[in-house]
Amino acid sequence: MKMGQKGRAVIALGGNALGDNLPEQMAAVKITSKAVADLIEEGYSVAIAHGNGPQVGMIQDAFGLLTRAEPEKYVQFPLSVCVALSQGYIGYDIQNALREELLDRGIGAGVVSILTQVEVDPKDPAFSAPEKPIGHFMTKEEADGLVKERGYVVREDSGRGYRRVVASPKPVAVVEKDIIITLMETGHVVVCCGGGGIPVFRTEGHHLKGAAAVIDKDLAAACLAEETGAEMLLILTAVDRVSLNFGKPDEKKLDSMTAAEAERYIKEGQFAPGSMLPKVEAAVSFVKGNPGRTAVIARLEDAGAAVRGETGTRILAG
Amino acid sequence: MKMGQKGRAVIALGGNALGDNLPEQMAAVKITSKAVADLIEEGYSVAIAHGNGPQVGMIQDAFGLLTRAEPEKYVQFPLSVCVALSQGYIGYDIQNALREELLDRGIGAGVVSILTQVEVDPKDPAFSAPEKPIGHFMTKEEADGLVKERGYVVREDSGRGYRRVVASPKPVAVVEKDIIITLMETGHVVVCCGGGGIPVFRTEGHHLKGAAAVIDKDLAAACLAEETGAEMLLILTAVDRVSLNFGKPDEKKLDSMTAAEAERYIKEGQFAPGSMLPKVEAAVSFVKGNPGRTAVIARLEDAGAAVRGETGTRILAG
Repeated sequence: MKMGQKGRAVIALGGNALGDNLPEQMAAVKITSKAVADLIEEGYSVAIAHGNGPQVGMIQDAFGLLTRAEPEKYVQFPLSVCVALSQGYIGYDIQNALREELLDRGIGAGVVSILTQVEVDPKDPAFSAPEKPIGHFMTKEEADGLVKERGYVVREDSGRGYRRVVASPKPVAVVEKDIIITLMETGHVVVCCGGGGIPVFRTEGHHLKGAAAVIDKDLAAACLAEETGAEMLLILTAVDRVSLNFGKPDEKKLDSMTAAEAERYIKEGQFAPGSMLPKVEAAVSFVKGNPGRTAVIARLEDAGAAVRGETGTRILAG
Repeated sequence: MKMGQKGRAVIALGGNALGDNLPEQMAAVKITSKAVADLIEEGYSVAIAHGNGPQVGMIQDAFGLLTRAEPEKYVQFPLSVCVALSQGYIGYDIQNALREELLDRGIGAGVVSILTQVEVDPKDPAFSAPEKPIGHFMTKEEADGLVKERGYVVREDSGRGYRRVVASPKPVAVVEKDIIITLMETGHVVVCCGGGGIPVFRTEGHHLKGAAAVIDKDLAAACLAEETGAEMLLILTAVDRVSLNFGKPDEKKLDSMTAAEAERYIKEGQFAPGSMLPKVEAAVSFVKGNPGRTAVIARLEDAGAAVRGETGTRILAG
């Protein structure tokens, strides 16, 4: 089917689509590209949002080492700058693997990675209770030093040491929305909102100020889908369906659920925070009250089959 | 005048437009934004190419430290990946400063930074004689280690120590050309070809392979101007005009020269390699044989006046 004939879709790619280091990433993006190309062949015009958890931690660590090695020359990068770097690092590999996959299939769509900023609300409650761990594990002494020197918030992490924690506020708007729509309308596949987007506050006048935060990539993808008028939000992960009673003897895989059912399951604590919970929340936020929209949570390798309804969990307005 | 009414212009930004570290960069891009906005107010649709010399060195150094600290986890990044990261790092600041400047002036153009790859020829003679220094100064022992471990080419640099040197091949084509044109046509200002572009070889099939090289940003800007059908190439730097006998008692600043005159001056050795020479070469390559095109080399702060012909050095087909 012709690209875009079925409308627009936003794909959210998680850790399994990217790997933890460069050789893993270069291998993972090949599989990821097949998933994206399948969706394009199903007739969608596609924008791709992706995570950056391990990558932004790696970048923060690298520049932490540089700043300590040459303190007279360099200052520590704000987290927003580290996210911008991660968009370069990850976007480059995704766009090339995807470009090649599309050309192999004879699909003449251009692929482009754009730096993307996502607005967050300075009053978001996440800023008063940061809880997203990033970067490497530290000793208590190292952690105390960073609290004192840089005002970091740190937390002991499951007996493995201390890590920096930052706020993970809700995405409010995609700053480069119009550009993404223009590119989708002119036949391009757009890699954007990397790492959930560079988090920014809108301050006085037109100014955008980087925020010390990371935005959940699934929620950012839902925001992107909303802002670009997409009909489909496809959240790709490592499992084939959303489960109730996950990992228990009575685990039940779901083929579909309504937004209302999903909200009830969320209240029951069915979904793990930082894992399936944000995916289901993102799906609900996209479809709730919008019968024309579909969200699907599926395994990375199953993208094409999932949008055809053969696998994955569909979340519908109800 | 309305944006784009005079046609397309490509701006090349050098080191003075960006600074050497993050605080310098954030200050420099504000001045740079005024220059770009002036050009837009003169009626041009604009794409911006920029250098990344200090930045790509800094990124290479940071990840060099990380790789040494955690050799079991990370491998050294290829130079092409470091260039991709630098496009995120620099593009983020340029696009935001420019976005703000345009909104302050009531210009409703979107600003977008895109990851850009520039094709180079594996047979380019630069690959057999790498001479572009990047990254920090090293002791002989450090340098010898990298030659042995990673096959780097190193060179003693003016008594200040050893540095890695890489090839600086000529740009052949901008891979994301069509996307840049689409964005310019739809009223966007495009930040692209950062650091001269991510250097790639076109190999078998559709594959693009990162090259261990850096492309001169002035030559990349000329290539970009050629490929986007620009009428104007504006190379912004720290001096107000190109000079003959630079720094001598009989120094003569030029208001204009033809491509043929410029080529004669190049042969006479009038222009310093790695400084004014690539700028003049880029200007000549853009205008030679094309009477409809103009290249201008001018001071960063003079962008508007320079395109009006009030300052700077104009290079014309002849």
